[in-house]
Amino acid sequence: MNISELKQNVDLKVSGKEMHEWMLRLYPICRSITGNGVRKTLDILGAYLPLTVREIPSGTPVFDWTVPKEWNIQDAFIKDSRGNRIVDFKASNLCVVGYSSPIHQRMSLEELKPFLHTLPDHPDWIPYRTSYYDDNWGFCVSHRQLMKFKDDEAYDVCIDSVLEDGHLTYGEYNLQGQCSDEVLLSCHICHPSLCNDNLSGIVLLTMLGKLLQQVSLRHSYRFLFIPGTIGSITWLALNEASASKIKYGLVAACVGDAGQITYKRSRQDNAQIDLIVEHVLKESGDPYDIKSFIPYGYDERQYCSPGFNLPVGCLQRTSYGDYPEYHTSADDSDFVRPESLQDSLYKYISVFNIIENNKTLINTNPKCEPQLGKRGLYKAIGGQGETLESQMAMLWTLNLSDGEHSLLEISEKSKIRFDLIKKIADILTAENLLKECS
Amino acid sequence: MNISELKQNVDLKVSGKEMHEWMLRLYPICRSITGNGVRKTLDILGAYLPLTVREIPSGTPVFDWTVPKEWNIQDAFIKDSRGNRIVDFKASNLCVVGYSSPIHQRMSLEELKPFLHTLPDHPDWIPYRTSYYDDNWGFCVSHRQLMKFKDDEAYDVCIDSVLEDGHLTYGEYNLQGQCSDEVLLSCHICHPSLCNDNLSGIVLLTMLGKLLQQVSLRHSYRFLFIPGTIGSITWLALNEASASKIKYGLVAACVGDAGQITYKRSRQDNAQIDLIVEHVLKESGDPYDIKSFIPYGYDERQYCSPGFNLPVGCLQRTSYGDYPEYHTSADDSDFVRPESLQDSLYKYISVFNIIENNKTLINTNPKCEPQLGKRGLYKAIGGQGETLESQMAMLWTLNLSDGEHSLLEISEKSKIRFDLIKKIADILTAENLLKECS
Amino acid sequence: MNISELKQNVDLKVSGKEMHEWMLRLYPICRSITGNGVRKTLDILGAYLPLTVREIPSGTPVFDWTVPKEWNIQDAFIKDSRGNRIVDFKASNLCVVGYSSPIHQRMSLEELKPFLHTLPDHPDWIPYRTSYYDDNWGFCVSHRQLMKFKDDEAYDVCIDSVLEDGHLTYGEYNLQGQCSDEVLLSCHICHPSLCNDNLSGIVLLTMLGKLLQQVSLRHSYRFLFIPGTIGSITWLALNEASASKIKYGLVAACVGDAGQITYKRSRQDNAQIDLIVEHVLKESGDPYDIKSFIPYGYDERQYCSPGFNLPVGCLQRTSYGDYPEYHTSADDSDFVRPESLQDSLYKYISVFNIIENNKTLINTNPKCEPQLGKRGLYKAIGGQGETLESQMAMLWTLNLSDGEHSLLEISEKSKIRFDLIKKIADILTAENLLKECS
Repeated sequence: MNISELKQNVDLKVSGKEMHEWMLRLYPICRSITGNGVRKTLDILGAYLPLTVREIPSGTPVFDWTVPKEWNIQDAFIKDSRGNRIVDFKASNLCVVGYSSPIHQRMSLEELKPFLHTLPDHPDWIPYRTSYYDDNWGFCVSHRQLMKFKDDEAYDVCIDSVLEDGHLTYGEYNLQGQCSDEVLLSCHICHPSLCNDNLSGIVLLTMLGKLLQQVSLRHSYRFLFIPGTIGSITWLALNEASASKIKYGLVAACVGDAGQITYKRSRQDNAQIDLIVEHVLKESGDPYDIKSFIPYGYDERQYCSPGFNLPVGCLQRTSYGDYPEYHTSADDSDFVRPESLQDSLYKYISVFNIIENNKTLINTNPKCEPQLGKRGLYKAIGGQGETLESQMAMLWTLNLSDGEHSLLEISEKSKIRFDLIKKIADILTAENLLKECS
Repeated sequence: MNISELKQNVDLKVSGKEMHEWMLRLYPICRSITGNGVRKTLDILGAYLPLTVREIPSGTPVFDWTVPKEWNIQDAFIKDSRGNRIVDFKASNLCVVGYSSPIHQRMSLEELKPFLHTLPDHPDWIPYRTSYYDDNWGFCVSHRQLMKFKDDEAYDVCIDSVLEDGHLTYGEYNLQGQCSDEVLLSCHICHPSLCNDNLSGIVLLTMLGKLLQQVSLRHSYRFLFIPGTIGSITWLALNEASASKIKYGLVAACVGDAGQITYKRSRQDNAQIDLIVEHVLKESGDPYDIKSFIPYGYDERQYCSPGFNLPVGCLQRTSYGDYPEYHTSADDSDFVRPESLQDSLYKYISVFNIIENNKTLINTNPKCEPQLGKRGLYKAIGGQGETLESQMAMLWTLNLSDGEHSLLEISEKSKIRFDLIKKIADILTAENLLKECS
Repeated sequence: MNISELKQNVDLKVSGKEMHEWMLRLYPICRSITGNGVRKTLDILGAYLPLTVREIPSGTPVFDWTVPKEWNIQDAFIKDSRGNRIVDFKASNLCVVGYSSPIHQRMSLEELKPFLHTLPDHPDWIPYRTSYYDDNWGFCVSHRQLMKFKDDEAYDVCIDSVLEDGHLTYGEYNLQGQCSDEVLLSCHICHPSLCNDNLSGIVLLTMLGKLLQQVSLRHSYRFLFIPGTIGSITWLALNEASASKIKYGLVAACVGDAGQITYKRSRQDNAQIDLIVEHVLKESGDPYDIKSFIPYGYDERQYCSPGFNLPVGCLQRTSYGDYPEYHTSADDSDFVRPESLQDSLYKYISVFNIIENNKTLINTNPKCEPQLGKRGLYKAIGGQGETLESQMAMLWTLNLSDGEHSLLEISEKSKIRFDLIKKIADILTAENLLKECS
């Protein structure tokens, strides 16, 4: 199967439902930037994709950073004086600040309060907080719950966590294509029970990997399932030589909400990936938004640091921080919809379709038009309805195949969809009217 | 006489009427891409312009094409059973599909119908159809006429045509200027009784040739009167070396209707000819439209094929296909108006005015302004009303004559009309404040 | 003190009042392009700024021009038959056409009228007229006054002026900075009792010179107080080598009226000075206007002649000619406001602030982000309110410090104000995360 066939034939509805089901399996796991939650997650993904799991020891220097200690947590709670677990890690792993150091202590509300985080504007939601590089601890609770805490109560506060030398764990999956030019696909796997950010990205990349496995590919595809920031820094530090092979890249994050699709350009601003994604979104007819690069966001921050400046953008739906559910318990499995996942999937495949099929051809009869009639080319194209557009596509493709215009550029200039230009280019190549650029 | 004088002194009204009269003389002739109709047309034009007529033998290979057999037609008709010519070539040469092969046969309406072409949406109009490179025949009739055909009638169908080895005929007229850089002017002469497309272009180029004869020219001008597509391909194939001398070019087509003027840019998109025509249209104050190049239309398709990529645009009024009369009997002598021909003439001359007069000069006192007062230059300019504009023109021309800006660019930047900039440049050159770029 | 401190600490209100007072002192003096009025003006300025006064002999050739004779005037009047001075130079020096040749003669109104200039549309205003390079004389009066002249009266007309070999006088003040790259500041000093054009420019440059004296400067600053046109031509002719050191320049004119600030770009159109001024005006939040260069206006005409093409713009308030008071007695001390002078002062200082502080730095950890947390950099920045913006400023400055982007460009791209970018760059440089471009 080639990528065009995949694009045409993939059963999006089934894929959308399947991704949503995978997400539900991953939802309960307590993930962080290191630890057993990540391992368990990669283990589950391994059922769909032959991932390689890598373990990098704590203390490994990675550029200006050091791989941190590994954090694991067994249990956490706040009990009232009657022994009731009024805050319970087993009910929601969001209730513990990520990377909290262990504690077990009886405290008054006054003592406890500085360690309790809430969202007064959304009294039913639990916030998501972390403290990776600072020795600290804390609990996140709904504001409504906090209101029930009593001043004269003594609370039994416990976090049963371990922070010690171990490993940073990430998953990698490489699909070898005909050439070594690479397409990088990256998602972060460090968030606990949060769906859009970023179980949606994890299941999308897993599905893409699974589907691309069946496809005969021109480019090589590298999938990274890594903890945010420290994961991409670690991978780049340990794979500097590989980075230069990356010709296109996308960070997949927040790809499951109901909002419109949003593309954040690479730092290069007009890299091929930027032109291709913009073309796909424009051609889709759906509403979309294009944003310039800013040095804030997800792992594109690292891929687009000035020393790498890789052509990596971020193709998402609603941008982080633009929806109130972001980094709260409200980013749950209802917030992510199968239809949105399936639409994101189709747009990623459409991007790959252009990456795989785009090329620059040369008109072998560049002086005046070739005589198409004597070759029966007007008839070779099929369906009545599209005949006029096909003829225009033929004239455009011949006229612009001067070695300076790719098929994508011909599609842009002619305002004829890429797939028809590509089909016509194949016909003209078969007739020896076009040839590959050497 | 120089071109500026021609532009000022040409009696447009007389020229407009004259072109319209020429058109009426050419109207009845049955032209096609080859044959005696073309010869007769060139013969008539020869009275106004010392054209060279060229004959290229059938079978001559021209790039991917071959010069076709020559087609001539004596008569054609459909007679009803009483012997009445209900369709008659002598009444309108549009009634025969161009390049129809000979036939003489009695046919029922059922047999005949596939060979009858009409325009149901315009029941009084006869369509114009051709079948150059396909062995075929047919008749074009008004839809109202078709309605009168009877099912039970036997029709006597005759096309008395000849398709045999002969020649492709075209006309060429060259005006030698001071330098060998050429301005190409091209029109197609292959349409039978159709006025806007393209007798209008034929009479416009004839008039331009006649007028330019009297002018002392810097550039050489090449006028081509050629059959569409195969004519330009033939000329380019047999004159490849000459093509490289073409520095500016215009295809003249549909220049006589009442619509606004339209310019279709060359494939280069910002060639000098594109900038000049756009300047002329802007400065005219009349409504106009500028279109990007597309690889469809008239012979600019060939001039702008990637192997030539010549700076040739198409300066027309209403674009082909944008008026319903296009390629029908309604494109008749009423559809083309003397005033429109005269306006097109003036705009073509205005384009030549810039082509001839534009140059890049050098300020001989580039450091600070020269002292204009001591040379009496404020007074040298004449008419009170224009004094302030003339002074600004002087300052602009001096300031921008750094070898990087042509007079046209100075006109664009200063928003002062080209003719005043040119007049001021002449005065400043006479004062040795400007000199020619070496 | 550095320029940032000057910008923060200058007491604008005091400076505005002070400039207005200086202007009142200079107002009564009769200035022209040469003569004692200029000397007296420079003498008064000398009390605030250690100006160097230069005297260039009449007859000195300066490019296409010659330094003219020196003009001085003692008195001028028109007396009626009863001996009343109905026009009196001692009441307003505007009443004599600049560079009038001497005359003393009894004349009828009919004889006198061609030498009287008025403004019929503004009957109470006296126009300002000159006749530098033409042997002529004349009086300027209000139109209401002209109406009182009587046909049958004999007028005693006297201009007691002297036009003889002497000098052209101008003032120069140079502030030597760390490097020889220069900032040129130029104003014209040839107008008599006219305030906005251009006592406002004179007092503004004087105040800027006085304030910059206290500042430790990277660039050298050259202040020119010169007669219009012939002054800049003379300076450029005699200092051609110095001109090449000018990297930024502003002509200060019409900087005291109540209108919005206007910047006229240099001929280069996108020189650093153009980008900097536009940035300052945009960042100010005040309304402003940007105009393209035209070869008409003040001395930027000479600095921007093609042989020099210096990066010199004109930063003014209402453009000359855009206010009716221009070149009339209504351009008086009420027309110029202390608040406007103070606003212009602040904007000039803001421009210098960027000129002095802008530079291009290099990220010493270009591969991935450096770990800011371990350096306590989030806290190093101060004030709570600005923390988020400061963090973004840090990320932008690190990301774009690749040797290709100046701090000004980082400010433009990030939409974060220049001063914060500069402050953050200093902090990052102190942490060795940025270093100077070598």
